[in-house]
Amino acid sequence: MANFIEPRILKGFRDFLPPAEIARRGLVERIEASFRSYGFVPIDTPALEYAEILLGKGGGETEKQIYRFNDHGGRDVALRFDLTVPFARFLAEHRAELSLPFKRYHIAKVWRGENTQRGRYREFTQCDFDIVGSDSPAADFEVLLIMRNTFRAIGAGEVTIRINHRGLFNRFLSNLGVLEKSVDILRTVDKLTKVGREETRGLLADLTDADKAGEILSFIEATGSFEEILDTITQASGGDSPESAWLRTLRRFMVDTGTADSFALDPSITRGLDYYTGVVYETFLKDLPDIGSVCSGGRYDDLAGLYAKERLSGVGSSIGLDRLIAALESLGKLKSTGSYAQVAIACVQDAQAGLYQALAGKFREAGIPCEVFLEERKLTKQFMLAEKKGARWLVIPGEAPLTDSLTLRDLGNRENQEGLSWEAAAAIIKGTGGMIS
Amino acid sequence: MANFIEPRILKGFRDFLPPAEIARRGLVERIEASFRSYGFVPIDTPALEYAEILLGKGGGETEKQIYRFNDHGGRDVALRFDLTVPFARFLAEHRAELSLPFKRYHIAKVWRGENTQRGRYREFTQCDFDIVGSDSPAADFEVLLIMRNTFRAIGAGEVTIRINHRGLFNRFLSNLGVLEKSVDILRTVDKLTKVGREETRGLLADLTDADKAGEILSFIEATGSFEEILDTITQASGGDSPESAWLRTLRRFMVDTGTADSFALDPSITRGLDYYTGVVYETFLKDLPDIGSVCSGGRYDDLAGLYAKERLSGVGSSIGLDRLIAALESLGKLKSTGSYAQVAIACVQDAQAGLYQALAGKFREAGIPCEVFLEERKLTKQFMLAEKKGARWLVIPGEAPLTDSLTLRDLGNRENQEGLSWEAAAAIIKGTGGMIS
Repeated sequence: MANFIEPRILKGFRDFLPPAEIARRGLVERIEASFRSYGFVPIDTPALEYAEILLGKGGGETEKQIYRFNDHGGRDVALRFDLTVPFARFLAEHRAELSLPFKRYHIAKVWRGENTQRGRYREFTQCDFDIVGSDSPAADFEVLLIMRNTFRAIGAGEVTIRINHRGLFNRFLSNLGVLEKSVDILRTVDKLTKVGREETRGLLADLTDADKAGEILSFIEATGSFEEILDTITQASGGDSPESAWLRTLRRFMVDTGTADSFALDPSITRGLDYYTGVVYETFLKDLPDIGSVCSGGRYDDLAGLYAKERLSGVGSSIGLDRLIAALESLGKLKSTGSYAQVAIACVQDAQAGLYQALAGKFREAGIPCEVFLEERKLTKQFMLAEKKGARWLVIPGEAPLTDSLTLRDLGNRENQEGLSWEAAAAIIKGTGGMIS
Repeated sequence: MANFIEPRILKGFRDFLPPAEIARRGLVERIEASFRSYGFVPIDTPALEYAEILLGKGGGETEKQIYRFNDHGGRDVALRFDLTVPFARFLAEHRAELSLPFKRYHIAKVWRGENTQRGRYREFTQCDFDIVGSDSPAADFEVLLIMRNTFRAIGAGEVTIRINHRGLFNRFLSNLGVLEKSVDILRTVDKLTKVGREETRGLLADLTDADKAGEILSFIEATGSFEEILDTITQASGGDSPESAWLRTLRRFMVDTGTADSFALDPSITRGLDYYTGVVYETFLKDLPDIGSVCSGGRYDDLAGLYAKERLSGVGSSIGLDRLIAALESLGKLKSTGSYAQVAIACVQDAQAGLYQALAGKFREAGIPCEVFLEERKLTKQFMLAEKKGARWLVIPGEAPLTDSLTLRDLGNRENQEGLSWEAAAAIIKGTGGMIS
């Protein structure tokens, strides 16, 4: 006993047992299939990079949370804390190898030493997708459409994607004479739902004055249809502008695709991050809006500016997989099973393990995942094990497993069908379903 | 210029551009499909663990290579350097939640600060699969069968899996009176192909004496059929034993499944790692044996012994994905494409981007991944872009994209078919293939 090491994991980190991991993978596979159907391609980058690359100009919160250390060669390295900064470095480094517009996705883990008390994890998965090298609103719209359709494809139901245009907001602030406070005002507005209306008003008044705080609040709280809100904020920002025209174009694309119901114009959406310059958006599940945005992003003018001279503009979005999983779980929409195999083959005699594998091979060739039980036990015990493992069927081989007829037990209704060839059993299994899609 | 950060990555780390990443993912997806078809289920564990957990009793090489540091909370942490140690910790921690035998796979990245001069990477992917909690040779055989069939399923061709039994080897050493030197002898034999026969003889003579070195060499160089070699080493180890019977049982399973040609008995296979106690094996591609073993493993008596009282025996194997990819590349067997989308939709008028997306949606609903071009350009330029992106077809929409007939350009033979409905175009695309499986 004395020499045991206590098995434990770090706070904020998680093991995934098979049911949870099967559900996660199923979800990621459906998200990927959606990205791929739009012609997006995957990339990957290292988990570990030079700290200088990841921190860029440095930034308060990030610097505190990043896992940073010196490696064997004395290099100052760190674990990536998002997928955007590595992507910017990737673009600068591989520009010559890519043809623009470049549509990529990247699904991978990132690490942040965050305070775990708020239910945050220190290791979590991001699903980023971006279109780089297009200055067209068609690119923004494609990202918005992918967001909407991906959530439908994974069974998350309808979403509301709340969009805004940072450029239009800045035009309004300029009109108001407070453009130089833009960054602070955007950050304050971004926290509106967290801190509440009156506190926001106070913070805005501190930044500007009471009248202007009132005008900013009126701007971000504009109500009505998409078009009505657009008219209101266009007026407030000094009339028609390239930014208001951009939003009108997006609106037309929404109508043309019959997806207008999924989108709302929300002038209070600003996204805290500095690098967005155009359209920004957040996504809420209609069945569970309170969990917050499950997918956010926006348009940027110059993503790789820190590492390269060439301006690379684009638009992108990121799904927070862990929040999405939490949401699907609480909606009862996260499907999982204990196993991918719907069929198990019972072990009647230890010595016949090879023949059971040969029989299982027939089912596998017929496209039926099939687990072989490895140890001779009472059949009732094997029934229980098969049920526990989530199988739907148990095959009980005959004396000569490959040639004698077999018994097929339906673990759902606990009925046996005897005297079947493996082909007949396979046909029953395939016909009745219970397949994992 | 002065403020740029040079975009670069750490030595031994890699970016994966889309063609490479599409190939990797395709390979991993096929490996996973194979594991799943045997009823294996996935798990995941954290990239970062307590260093104490990962290092266990400590070990020379490992300790030097591991990425280890103190986190924000002053904890002594490290990046995992394999998937076996975290799995042992996982088993000890979650034993109560698992039903045995537990068949799991884990495909994930690991990190080692290795010397990169030998073409090694510091970040690489392992594909581990194990059966825990079975003391039956049927479990060993299932792992061996999965190895053989997975390499066939991914198009790597035929393999030779060279197997041996450590227990039988030890019985032979005991018979020879040098059992106490077992670990050193096993390690020396493990390096036979690296250092050559005569140097191995010398090293063995240093460990024992010249006569015994000769006998050990004769043992590990036994020739003949599986059965003949088994007879030879059974004799040399003092006659029939549970270990020789175990190998005979495995042989019968091979014959019963018609897979005997894929396996060879090779008494020189020992695997360097201490924790193996039974059967051990290495896998060589018949078309490229010189690249070395692409999948190795063995049986262990007590995997989680460092963390738990309960003995957990099992058998497992690990595919080194990077070596496998290098092998498939040099055999011309690694399939990749520039994109998942075989169809692109040309942009004839910027203002119709929404309608192009609506048209693309029809193809996607018909199961055809479809990229929409985002910017109005000369059609010849769009032909070139589509070819560059690896698309097979370009759809040129009519004036009213959803209702007017369209033109379908075959980018292979550069011929156009005009006047098609989208249904007719989809039928041509589906019928002619070029699908990515």
